[in-house]
Amino acid sequence: MDNEFDWIRSIQPKTHKQKTVEVGIGDDAAIVRPNDGCDTVLAVDTMVEGVHFTKDTMTAEDIGYKALAVNLSDIAAMGAVPLYYIVSIAVPKTGWSQEETRGIYRGMAELAEIHEIDLIGGDTVSINGPLVISVTIGGEVEKDCRLLRQNAQAGDIVFVTGPLGRSPYGLDHLLEYGRERADEMPAVYPYVEAHQRPFPQVAIGRFLACQDVRIALNDISDGIAHEAKEIAEASGAAVILEWESLPVDEKLKEAPLSKQEDWVLYGGEEFQLVGTVSAQDWFILKREAKEHGFELTAVGEVTAGEGVFLRRNDTIEQISRSGYTHF
Amino acid sequence: MDNEFDWIRSIQPKTHKQKTVEVGIGDDAAIVRPNDGCDTVLAVDTMVEGVHFTKDTMTAEDIGYKALAVNLSDIAAMGAVPLYYIVSIAVPKTGWSQEETRGIYRGMAELAEIHEIDLIGGDTVSINGPLVISVTIGGEVEKDCRLLRQNAQAGDIVFVTGPLGRSPYGLDHLLEYGRERADEMPAVYPYVEAHQRPFPQVAIGRFLACQDVRIALNDISDGIAHEAKEIAEASGAAVILEWESLPVDEKLKEAPLSKQEDWVLYGGEEFQLVGTVSAQDWFILKREAKEHGFELTAVGEVTAGEGVFLRRNDTIEQISRSGYTHF
Repeated sequence: MDNEFDWIRSIQPKTHKQKTVEVGIGDDAAIVRPNDGCDTVLAVDTMVEGVHFTKDTMTAEDIGYKALAVNLSDIAAMGAVPLYYIVSIAVPKTGWSQEETRGIYRGMAELAEIHEIDLIGGDTVSINGPLVISVTIGGEVEKDCRLLRQNAQAGDIVFVTGPLGRSPYGLDHLLEYGRERADEMPAVYPYVEAHQRPFPQVAIGRFLACQDVRIALNDISDGIAHEAKEIAEASGAAVILEWESLPVDEKLKEAPLSKQEDWVLYGGEEFQLVGTVSAQDWFILKREAKEHGFELTAVGEVTAGEGVFLRRNDTIEQISRSGYTHF
Repeated sequence: MDNEFDWIRSIQPKTHKQKTVEVGIGDDAAIVRPNDGCDTVLAVDTMVEGVHFTKDTMTAEDIGYKALAVNLSDIAAMGAVPLYYIVSIAVPKTGWSQEETRGIYRGMAELAEIHEIDLIGGDTVSINGPLVISVTIGGEVEKDCRLLRQNAQAGDIVFVTGPLGRSPYGLDHLLEYGRERADEMPAVYPYVEAHQRPFPQVAIGRFLACQDVRIALNDISDGIAHEAKEIAEASGAAVILEWESLPVDEKLKEAPLSKQEDWVLYGGEEFQLVGTVSAQDWFILKREAKEHGFELTAVGEVTAGEGVFLRRNDTIEQISRSGYTHF
């Protein structure tokens, strides 16, 4: 590989899209100028080769794209505007060519272009082990406008922003057929793409942040059962999900119920948003969303108590599994 | 290990020291409120087991302490006030106990306490490989007050904030004797500590930022030869370092000259600051610094041209090695 300094030059953007960036890559730290009236929103997500991806399931560009997408999803869940990102990458001493590593940055740049955000800093190190990429993202949101998990109240409607289970369904096919074959299967490809290049719901997040109603919001990174549990715990309430209301593609319904549950309830990396809003605001919110081109679906309710429950065929069961955890 | 959520609870601070922190750990992202009239300063540094440290040279607490210290050093080099940090950690599936991993957070918390900064977010993942810790730090500096690398001009004095070569000298002894024996050697321990627990020069950085004179500044993370080269390149000038002026402990001078050069010119992880200031401002700056308890040492000059040169015994040689790089 080039030396570290040529490498930095090769990934350094020539211009910045955001006027908020005062000093980007090339000094000890980056400098950004906050906009008046806004709070800064910061999140980090890390992806490890062999845990979150392998070369068998993702191209280098996919890996970069997804590493940024999962961070954009955190920004979306706060209703914030993404502005800039910082990349720390540990590149294996063997097995990854410089061109492949550049591909990761190309994948990030592609998604950054869509959201008009800037790469402003980073660190590149080597590792005797798998590739590790860690992205820190920064954005801003109007002061005191917060879509926190703790905002749910008994009586709220629980809603989601799109279909569930697509990414884990795609992953299952990737693992079964491999990346190159799965990419060639038209019926499967949309699901494979949902896994490789998830679409962060930044626009819906901003729409929700601007509605001036109390909303609790989470992105679905670890399966809706787990995210609902986080909202329930943070808010001191219980959540009941309605199995029949969860938006699921017909294709997934061809599989046995236990498989469907794996994908829809516990499947990770969905990156839709799950939220709650009072019953009286729900119908206005849904209609307003529709006018903006967003489809919100009611999938359950918040009640007094604790835990997450599933209602199906008039029976209610507590959900005890809590999605994917990293230990 | 506990599940991910118990783990997050175990490392989550109970209170925040900075009023700027609006939402810390526990939601999709952290929220901080920028102070009026300030820019935000952000940096990231990553340490990889087997590359930047091993268990033979550092305790878990040392690793955490240093991971935060290297980031504080970046903030220092921008003359900024550190405010908060975000930690991404990839924990090996074997070989690291939960107690050891907690030790890393204790080490960070110890240094964070001194600088009154808050842990506001992070990500914990597992890895089939070495431990990787990546810290993103945030701070703030008065608008347009910037100690950038590109600020140097021909005629400037080059200065450093403290003795050089201590950390690499300590590392050599750590590698020779191992951590436990080196810790017991009184003559060596201060140097071992310089490697394990470097002291970030945040206070001097703030002093320099407040002087209202043109200053170029870098932290010495990769050896002064390399940092001087960065200043020279960014400023379109050359730097001449005076070997006899470089502040070096007597102990290091007992070694052969080539060893001294390795430690003093090319030794990484020094974390003193190197800067430049005009000759006419230099004497006032040095005196003011002294009154604040800081010792600045002139070690060379900036001239027209390009490259970094070493003057020794009235001869001048270009320095071609450029310090430690990660490839």
